[in-house]
Formats: sequence, structure tokens, C-alpha cells
Amino acid sequence: MKKLLLLTTISLCILSCNKKTEEKIAKGFSSEEKIDSTHIKTLFNSVLKEGKSYEWLRDLTKNIGGRLSGSPEAAKAVIWGEKIMNEVGLDSVWLQPVMVPHWVRGEKEIATYTTNGIQKNVPICALGFSIATPNTGILAEVLEVKSLDEAKALGKKMEGKIVFFNRPFDNTLINTFSAYGGCVDQRVQGAAICGQFGAKGVIVRSMTNSVDDFPHTGTMTYNDLPKEQHIPAAAISSNAANILSTDLEKNPNLKFYFKQSCKTLPDAASFNVVGEIRGTETPENVFVVGGHLDSWDLGEGAHDDGTGIVQSLEVAYLFKKNNIKPKNTIRIVFFMNEENGTRGAKKYAELAKFNKENHIGGLESDAGGHTPRGFSIQANSSNTKLLQSWKKLLSPYGLHNLDKGGSGADISPLKGDGVTLVGYRPDSQRYFDYHHTSSDTFDKVNKRELELGSASMASIVYLMDKYLYKNTLIKQ
Amino acid sequence: MKKLLLLTTISLCILSCNKKTEEKIAKGFSSEEKIDSTHIKTLFNSVLKEGKSYEWLRDLTKNIGGRLSGSPEAAKAVIWGEKIMNEVGLDSVWLQPVMVPHWVRGEKEIATYTTNGIQKNVPICALGFSIATPNTGILAEVLEVKSLDEAKALGKKMEGKIVFFNRPFDNTLINTFSAYGGCVDQRVQGAAICGQFGAKGVIVRSMTNSVDDFPHTGTMTYNDLPKEQHIPAAAISSNAANILSTDLEKNPNLKFYFKQSCKTLPDAASFNVVGEIRGTETPENVFVVGGHLDSWDLGEGAHDDGTGIVQSLEVAYLFKKNNIKPKNTIRIVFFMNEENGTRGAKKYAELAKFNKENHIGGLESDAGGHTPRGFSIQANSSNTKLLQSWKKLLSPYGLHNLDKGGSGADISPLKGDGVTLVGYRPDSQRYFDYHHTSSDTFDKVNKRELELGSASMASIVYLMDKYLYKNTLIKQ
Repeated sequence: MKKLLLLTTISLCILSCNKKTEEKIAKGFSSEEKIDSTHIKTLFNSVLKEGKSYEWLRDLTKNIGGRLSGSPEAAKAVIWGEKIMNEVGLDSVWLQPVMVPHWVRGEKEIATYTTNGIQKNVPICALGFSIATPNTGILAEVLEVKSLDEAKALGKKMEGKIVFFNRPFDNTLINTFSAYGGCVDQRVQGAAICGQFGAKGVIVRSMTNSVDDFPHTGTMTYNDLPKEQHIPAAAISSNAANILSTDLEKNPNLKFYFKQSCKTLPDAASFNVVGEIRGTETPENVFVVGGHLDSWDLGEGAHDDGTGIVQSLEVAYLFKKNNIKPKNTIRIVFFMNEENGTRGAKKYAELAKFNKENHIGGLESDAGGHTPRGFSIQANSSNTKLLQSWKKLLSPYGLHNLDKGGSGADISPLKGDGVTLVGYRPDSQRYFDYHHTSSDTFDKVNKRELELGSASMASIVYLMDKYLYKNTLIKQ
Repeated sequence: MKKLLLLTTISLCILSCNKKTEEKIAKGFSSEEKIDSTHIKTLFNSVLKEGKSYEWLRDLTKNIGGRLSGSPEAAKAVIWGEKIMNEVGLDSVWLQPVMVPHWVRGEKEIATYTTNGIQKNVPICALGFSIATPNTGILAEVLEVKSLDEAKALGKKMEGKIVFFNRPFDNTLINTFSAYGGCVDQRVQGAAICGQFGAKGVIVRSMTNSVDDFPHTGTMTYNDLPKEQHIPAAAISSNAANILSTDLEKNPNLKFYFKQSCKTLPDAASFNVVGEIRGTETPENVFVVGGHLDSWDLGEGAHDDGTGIVQSLEVAYLFKKNNIKPKNTIRIVFFMNEENGTRGAKKYAELAKFNKENHIGGLESDAGGHTPRGFSIQANSSNTKLLQSWKKLLSPYGLHNLDKGGSGADISPLKGDGVTLVGYRPDSQRYFDYHHTSSDTFDKVNKRELELGSASMASIVYLMDKYLYKNTLIKQ
């Protein structure tokens, strides 16, 4: 028994190694870095002891749920956003009116086909902006392709057929967003290509690394096609796509049936929700922190992008709670309509320009609420280097990635000379299990991972506020 | 609509940045590093295209389930382990007999108390090696403490009472294993301390970062206390611990009742399962890769340590699949009885010594199956530096942590001059949500995260086999 105890003790010493590592890193710090390191530790301690984001997210996802632009839920989310910003005690909170697209899904979609006498029901969902099928649905033979080029090459052969885009994610890409980027043209452009050649409809393999039964919705476009060339477009689950592909090999003439009743209504009035902490020294310099308040309708918009919303607000909460007074104005923005139009982002940038606001930077969280990995930096080379010099301050918190790259769809319209835009980058492995599906729900979010994200964001905002401000002063 | 498309395209370019980053890193490589980099990429591609670990884990967890040492399930797991090693086609597979402790939980535990006329049922589970309560259970007043020292200071005041250890995890520690290390003395030593002073029983707050309703079991000891001083010990859920603490403030004389019927039977015969790929150049040099086959009984032993088992075997599978022939012998070990005795680890080390085997190193996976973060290195300084020099090869896969530290309970008995022991370190944030509970089940494991872990392990085994072998040759 003594031996057992000894072993237990040994293995605990082993496990506590990381604490020592953190201390060792701190030893190599300059006096300024020690101050920064202490502030960062304070932000992390604070969120892990008294974070608010998880309960905010519960409220947003469970009491409002999915909130597609133009929907009653999106309208409720705006009221919720304004209320919660006021509760945090921001210096001012306001709504920015913006007209948004208003697409509605209608009745639950149906898809089915029969092969070898067996009828198979297919998990399916309409793509955002797609038109409906006729009331009686569409029944047609299926042509399977793996790319837009392969579809184009079919030309008039697709007349009267359903074109089935079935190129899967490249699962060997470590960053799952790269795999998404390599596939999503099928979803976005499939119908626009095939509508020109007289196809009857388009079905697309869901955008995911997994093989499962969830259809993933998402936006699509008809580009400038005349209305008579618009054809219905839908996503089927990855598992159903595999089965359909196998069935088509055996029975190329099988007929696929689907029915959907979605439609695009006139644009609806909506809002970006904006709140700010005024800067103490150069309040005219604005630093934006945000995510998007709208979501797809199928799930609860938890990872996409409820987490980004609550983390953004928690940055302000942590500043206030810990009496960190930013030199520049920190503005929290809940952008509307990222999913199907980014109208909120455009409106925000348009007003910033119109009001001659001086945006020095921005941070966006729209890659899920998983465990933190780092940030992606969209800035000039001197500011990129500046941000990368903070690696030793950030890496004890798992923030190792500080690569040049994009920031996010909602803040990138702000890009310009000397503007430093940053995208928060949590771990991406689980993200496309839930993205745009009915399973993007609150229970998929881990409290600690969410909170570590908030503190990660607050830390880089603290550093950017302090040092980009200095950069700005030097310039003047 | 065109604008929408443009924005979508922009945001996709943004998202695919990591691919470019990986390529950029590769540009700084020496010719030898380029070869290594290619091998590592092959291992990752292979596991993400044709990995086996996830289906192996499904089989182990769903068809066998929890497998506490000495249980029929542990015996089934041994047969399963031998069969699956043979299926992978290892050069030889054998069983190492080992006698293991045999503790059984008995009937489901019960706990309850009444305060202000309201009866509250408490989620509770006996701790491993605890004795039973009398058949009628224990009913006693409760003394709440936050540490072993606080308990000791109570001395004889605890006579006839139940001592309630309620120091929570320090949630501000980023590495959750550090928080566990800072709390688990209450679980391991609580009963041994309080038994001496005549306490009637011990209840311990569950070892977790979460506030939830799952009691977490785990091992405890009575040290060398005489039998008459052994008292029953159990864990209650963290949520129940919070509620009980509040109730005790209002009503310090409330009486807590619990009943458990666990007991320790005579030691049982069991086995380590061992298989190896013989080395092509110095087969007498052995490199061990392993996890533990036993688990606690409450859940399915998925993250602890089913994932370590299937990842270890997948290292061998990936070597064979990709025709990588190790220079040293790579030995896969499914250790028995890590949870309550580490008898398998001791037996393995004892036999290695007896047979004068030359162990040059080892790798253990026993920290869950979450997304990879790195390795912890237990080695002399030159080998530590050697391993740390591989950072640029490993970091494109999220493996940034290569700190000095412990390896794991099952391989650390092999430590010695020049032996390089490594612990695989996945992200720790979610681990103690499931650890030793009924919720440590298959569905908590993500396929990609599990597979990335296998490839991470295979990569460092590939590098260690190649370069530690060179080290060994140079020495000769």
C-alpha cells in the first residue's frame, strides 16, 4: 500500500510539471513583459473564477435559439444583445439599423429514392437563398460530379437531371477550415453553374469531416443568372452522400426525389448591436471586438457564432471587472447577417467611414468556441512582428499560433493602412461536426474552453490597446 | 449577389492560411529534416485516411465497457487485446501474467440527508479500496474541512463524525492535471488520516473542474493503519458538495447517511498484453509504447485509457501500413492495473530487468484522447534537447509543448541512465469532466482528435527510433 501511495505521489509530481514551466518562462521576461504577464494572468484567473460567457451563451442558445437574419429570433437576439451590453455597464450602447436578406426555410424538406426495391429516406436541407421546388417536388435522374469543372464539362447532358456534387473534405488537412475552403465552392456555386445548363436541381454533399446523418446548410448564390435559370439547391448528409454514390454505381438510372418550400422574402429591418468602453487617452481611436449575432436556423447557433458573441462581450466585462482602462476606445460589435449577406459588416464599415472614425484594429471570434490555439494576423509587417513578439506572453495559455492570415468576414471590411485585424483561432478539429447543422447546440460547448477563449481575446486586446496606441502616438 | 460571392471567396482565402504556413515552415528544413517531415506527413495522412483506432475504441468501450482489475470485463479486455494485436500482424504477441488487486463495488451506493425538512439524495460512489459501511449504512454529523492538515487539527473532535473534504480544484491552473495534483491528496489520504482519530467515515468532493452531478471514483489507501481504524470512504459530486456545504452553514448538526457494500477480494490473476515489431538493426534495443487496459468500473474507460490503448496499437499499425521498419524493437504494451496498484507496470519493469532487456525509451498515452498539444519529456539533458530540436517538425500538427516533465505511471518504472521516457500530452481542458465517472464513454471521444493523437505518437516514435538509435550507436 505504501508503494501504491508512493506511485500516486510520483505520478502527481509528473502531472504538475506545467506550472513549473510557466514560472520558468516568466523568468526570462523584461520588466515591461512582467507587467503584461501579470495583467494577462489576472484576465485568465478572472474569467476562470467568475466568467459570465457560459451563462450568457446558455441564455442566447436555449431561450432564443437559431436566429437567421430577418427571423423573429434574430429580432429577439438584438433586444437580448442590447440588454446584456447594458448589464455589463458599457459606457454607451446603441443599435445600428441595417436591412438584411430574409430567407425562410418553410416546411421541413423531404428527400427519398428507391433502388433495388428499397426506399431510402435522405437527410436533406435547403441551402440558404435557394428557391423552392414545385409543390410536388422534383423527381429526376442523378449525375454525380466531384467539382464545378466536372459539372461544366457535362454541359447540356445535365438537362432535366439533378446534379449531385460529392467531393468530400480533404481530411488530411490539419486545419479543418482549409478542408472547408477546398470544398465549399460546390455548395456556393453549384446551382449557378448547373442552372445555366438546364439542370432540374442540385444536391451537395454536406461540408464536414465526419460521416454522419446531419445535413449542413449554408449560403449559396445564383450570381447574375436570370430567374428562369434558378434551380433548387440542397445539402444531403455525408453518410447519405456515400450511400447514394454507391447506389448510383449499381443503378445509374435511379430517380431522386426532393421537396422544399423555402423562399426569399423582401429585405427585413435589423440591427448591429454596438457598445463601447471609451478610451482614456485617445478615445478617437477605435478598436473593434466582435462576432456575429445571427446564425443558421437548424441548430441553436452555439459554436457559430454564439461563442464569438459572448466571448467578445466578456472581453469588455473582464476589462471592467479588473479595472483595466483602455487607452483607445474598445468597441464591442454583435454583427448581424454574417451568414447570408454580411450586410451588418458592410453597414458598420460604411458608417465608420462616413463618421470619419479612426479604426486602429479589430478582433473577430468566428471559428467556434473550442480550446484556444492562437490568432491569425492581418496587418502590415511591422505590426505583425509586434504581435508575434508577444508569443512568449501568450504561449503559456496554449496560444502558439500567431501566423499571418485573415481575420474574419465581419471585420475585414475595415482593413486599410496601419489597421491591425486579428482573428481568434481556437482548435478546429470538432468545428465541422456541428457547423450549420441541428447539432450546433449549447451542450457542445465546454465552459472552460469557452472562457479560455474570452481571456485569450482579452489578453491580445490588452496588448494591442497598449502597444498599438504607442505606435499611433509615435507616428503623430 | 456578386458581392456576397466575393466576400465568401475572401473569407475562404483567409481560412486556408494554415496550409501556406505549413509549406513555409518546410522551406527552412535541412535535407534530413525534409525526409523526416515527409515521413511524418505520411503518418498523419495515413491515420486520417485509414485509421483504425476509432473502431477499435468503439469495440473495447461498447462491447466490453468498464474493466476494473480482476473483473470479468478486464479478463475479456486481455483476450480482446491479444486478438487485436495479432490482427495488426505484430511479429510476436504474448501475455505477461501478473497478480492484481481485486476490489469490487457491490451494490449501487446510497447517500442522503435531511435539512429543514427536505430530504436530499446525493450522487455518491465508493472510492477504490474502501471498505463497506455496515449493512445499515452510516449516519453521522458532518465536519467539513478543506485539507488534510485541517483534518489533522480536528484530532479527536472527529470521533463518530463523517469528515467531508471539500477543497475544490484550482480552476485558474491552465493545465487541469495540475489542479488535480493539488486536490487528490484528499481522496487518496483522507480516510487514512481520519481513521486514526476515530472518524466514522469520509466523503470527498469529486476531482473535477466542473460543477455537475457525477461522482468521480479513484483510488485511496489506508497506509499501514490497523484494520480497526479503516473507515469507509466515498466521493460525492461537486454539485452535491456545494449544496451540502451551504446546508452545513445553515444547519451544522445535520446528519449525513451513506451506504456502500464494496470489498477487496483476494488478488486475481491477470495479464499485461505485449506485442512487438522486431528492430531491423538493433533488435535488442526496446522502445515501449503503451497505455493501460484496465479502467474504473463506472463508465466505459474511454478517455481513461481506452484512447491510450488504441493509439498505442495504431502506432504499430501505421508503421506496418506505411512500411516503416524500425531499427530498434518497438514494443506495444497494454498495461494492466494502472488505476489501483500499477502492478502491471511493476511486473513489466521487473521482467525487463530479469531478462536483461535494453530499454532505450518509452512513450505512454494516459491523459485522454483530446486534440494533441505535445509531449512531456523525462530524459537526460542531451536527449531532452534532441527531442526539443524536433519542434519545427511537430508544431505544424499542433504539437508545441515539448517540456521537461514526467512521462506516465506505467513506463516510469523503466527510468534509468540514458532511457528516454515521453508522455503524450493532449489538451487537458475537458479531461476531468469525464475522468473516473460514468460519463467516460465512447461518445466523448472525437474521431479526428483520437487519430491525430495516434499520428503524433507514431511521429515521435519514428524520430526517437531513428535518432536515439544513432545515439546508441555512437555510444558503442
